[in-house]
Amino acid sequence: MQPTPVKKIEAPKTARGIKTRAKILKAAEQVFGNKGFHAASISEITQVAEVSQGTFYIYFPDKEEAFRALVEFMGQETQAFIRQRTGAAQSRLEAERLGLQAFLSFVAEHKNLYRIVLESLFVDEAIYRSYFSKFGALYQSRLDAAAGNGEITAGDTEVRAWCLMGISHFLGMRYGLWDSPEAHARVVDAAADFISNGLRAKDAP
Amino acid sequence: MQPTPVKKIEAPKTARGIKTRAKILKAAEQVFGNKGFHAASISEITQVAEVSQGTFYIYFPDKEEAFRALVEFMGQETQAFIRQRTGAAQSRLEAERLGLQAFLSFVAEHKNLYRIVLESLFVDEAIYRSYFSKFGALYQSRLDAAAGNGEITAGDTEVRAWCLMGISHFLGMRYGLWDSPEAHARVVDAAADFISNGLRAKDAP
Repeated sequence: MQPTPVKKIEAPKTARGIKTRAKILKAAEQVFGNKGFHAASISEITQVAEVSQGTFYIYFPDKEEAFRALVEFMGQETQAFIRQRTGAAQSRLEAERLGLQAFLSFVAEHKNLYRIVLESLFVDEAIYRSYFSKFGALYQSRLDAAAGNGEITAGDTEVRAWCLMGISHFLGMRYGLWDSPEAHARVVDAAADFISNGLRAKDAP
Repeated sequence: MQPTPVKKIEAPKTARGIKTRAKILKAAEQVFGNKGFHAASISEITQVAEVSQGTFYIYFPDKEEAFRALVEFMGQETQAFIRQRTGAAQSRLEAERLGLQAFLSFVAEHKNLYRIVLESLFVDEAIYRSYFSKFGALYQSRLDAAAGNGEITAGDTEVRAWCLMGISHFLGMRYGLWDSPEAHARVVDAAADFISNGLRAKDAP
């Protein structure tokens, strides 16, 4: 079955439009996260968002495009949250520590994040790939800058970016999603030490 | 809707039984991976496996139990493959390098692994958690042993185990699944260096 081509809708430019779109996406986060993509309906999203169906269609041509926009929106929200909490960092290694701490808090407050992002693999693999590839590219550019001014050793920043994303994703799942916030300080300490120093013992070959 | 309780089937003990069950699971890997859990049917699995439906039901009470067994089976196959390729390692850090190399090869040869494991989150979250928790516990015990005999520095081995799983999972996805095998040597070198030495520059604070 060929997918029906959907009309492209421009992102809103007015403050009110941006706010309404965000309100619909927050409702979509709740509905898609709780019900899954297939069982979720546009009418339920509009009810939670307290907007009319007509308003929904101003911003999104169909359910799949709303889902696609939601995954992108959650990526942007995650990045914004981390940026805010790492802005005062004096070095890349400090930013790694603060960023991980922020990510664990974000996951604990957005319990549906993983279900939505992982389900995107089954809705359209392009959404899933794009989500992680965008994070990867951003991460890599930060590592490049840090390696450039000697804050970290030189090395393959693309591979390192994917290593660091993997660490965040798995610690976010294990401790942000499945565990209680009391564990977070210990986890951040241990992970920051690993990221900074690796595992090699001083006198190991 | 309450799930129907399923009868517990003991794992086969004869060589022939183990072989038939594995044949069904290999077929299930293909069918569930290509179609997804919901669209896949028992009759398609038995056709691919070249066994009767009656034979299927000797080993699995229903489709969900076959799926659950498949995820567990793939975890065991992954572990066995890595164990075989890391057996000659002289240290934990060498085992990390060889293990990552093996995992990238395994993923490239089992393109359905990620789809199946990630879909398990939506079939029954317990399957998904169990898959990673088993890997985590095994990894942690190996790190404990290595820290105990001074091959690696002392540290929180639970957190480190989840960091290392995250690295493998993300590099497996990015380079084993999405990229060509030519990249693997570079990726393994860069990741092994990161795991061993971390990012900290020698004269960084």
